[in-house]
Amino acid sequence: APGEVWLVGAGPGDPGLLTRRAASAIGRADLLLHDALPGRAVLRLARHDATLVAVGKRKGNAPMPQAKINARLIAGARAGLRVVRLKGGDPFLFGRGGEEARALNEAGIPWRVVPGVTAGTAAPAAAGVPLTHRGTASAVTFVTGHDEGGALPGGVDWDALGRAGGTIAAFMALSKLDEIALRLLAAGRAAETPVAIVAQASLPGQAVLRSTLGTCTLDARRAALPTPALVVIGEVAALGLLQPNLGLPAQAVG
Amino acid sequence: APGEVWLVGAGPGDPGLLTRRAASAIGRADLLLHDALPGRAVLRLARHDATLVAVGKRKGNAPMPQAKINARLIAGARAGLRVVRLKGGDPFLFGRGGEEARALNEAGIPWRVVPGVTAGTAAPAAAGVPLTHRGTASAVTFVTGHDEGGALPGGVDWDALGRAGGTIAAFMALSKLDEIALRLLAAGRAAETPVAIVAQASLPGQAVLRSTLGTCTLDARRAALPTPALVVIGEVAALGLLQPNLGLPAQAVG
Repeated sequence: APGEVWLVGAGPGDPGLLTRRAASAIGRADLLLHDALPGRAVLRLARHDATLVAVGKRKGNAPMPQAKINARLIAGARAGLRVVRLKGGDPFLFGRGGEEARALNEAGIPWRVVPGVTAGTAAPAAAGVPLTHRGTASAVTFVTGHDEGGALPGGVDWDALGRAGGTIAAFMALSKLDEIALRLLAAGRAAETPVAIVAQASLPGQAVLRSTLGTCTLDARRAALPTPALVVIGEVAALGLLQPNLGLPAQAVG
Repeated sequence: APGEVWLVGAGPGDPGLLTRRAASAIGRADLLLHDALPGRAVLRLARHDATLVAVGKRKGNAPMPQAKINARLIAGARAGLRVVRLKGGDPFLFGRGGEEARALNEAGIPWRVVPGVTAGTAAPAAAGVPLTHRGTASAVTFVTGHDEGGALPGGVDWDALGRAGGTIAAFMALSKLDEIALRLLAAGRAAETPVAIVAQASLPGQAVLRSTLGTCTLDARRAALPTPALVVIGEVAALGLLQPNLGLPAQAVG
């Protein structure tokens, strides 16, 4: 009988933010294909005799092409293995989990998805920034800063987004921050709009930068923030809203 | 010394989708104020001598007013207790966690936030619907169907949202579905736009309804879906995208 593939969200990296189902799925896997983000503390939950394959982008190494990842998942399942595809954050929110699910469907392989804590909520939390707040923002839009080719995704209507007025949370947006800020300013967002950038949320290298739409590109460059980073744009990112964050472990930069 | 308040996301209800940190925070709490959503299996993780206070809306019971919840959190912390405020989903995404954090700041009580798996990703996952998908949607907007007064929130620009073209995921939207659909149709979204409604995601009563923007109000009424429900609007909700969802536990309705 063919094995099953579980598309598992590992959360933002901190092993405490792994769900109990993700932890148990990792512990049962025969074959585990993992992104660069889930760290050693997470991978240590795997069985000693499990096969671990790093498929994400690492220092000096290109990521495994998506087609090759799909082929490994399918081959593993056909060999009867319990296969886990461990992804940073949530598999279906900028996780390309849909593409893997489609490939598995086409191959007739059963799959399940285990949602995870997305960096979209974990990173703002680390900075003490609520995504929605009564009287301040009643909607939040998650976008990504670059598509597969590294460009700003063509499918996002930045003009409408800028005018809509809710919170914007941009994944992997550091390299395109200048372009994103310019488009939102052109759409009428004020230069004083608060911005919070959270790099490596929940990981030991976590850093938080508070800025504004007008100056964030320069501020981020000066701070030389590490990646991955989430950029939160909107009034919810105003310094005063939840300050002082007495109990927060967030480390302030800049 | 005053105790600390932890604002903890419990995820969508399934105890398997609790994070490991949330589970350990529940197990350490002296005083635990919880929403209606986290079920018995989650609350069973609390110590036998912990004080549990249900503050959410339950059959026949009004929810505890927010000011009273804040006062209980503050009083508990001042009494030196380890206080956990356990919330469905994620505390900072339609969770009113920001309001509680503000009240704690004003009282000088240290607090932390533990992000959780939001129904915004867990519910679509249960239906096999990715929120973003290459070539289909590169942005998703989370909105809520009603504000504190039960009306559609005034701060959401439905016209801009309708024109922006990304995925829309609406929390607690069943009672306002007719109004939401009309606004998006008026903004130019096609009546054939796919809609997936996921009720009680991850819980035993989970139900999924597939429909379109033009017919979803009528279809949802006929199916008499339970609450809470998340409504996903956009091409990612098209039935064919990830079908057949061989391994998914989702139960189809209608």
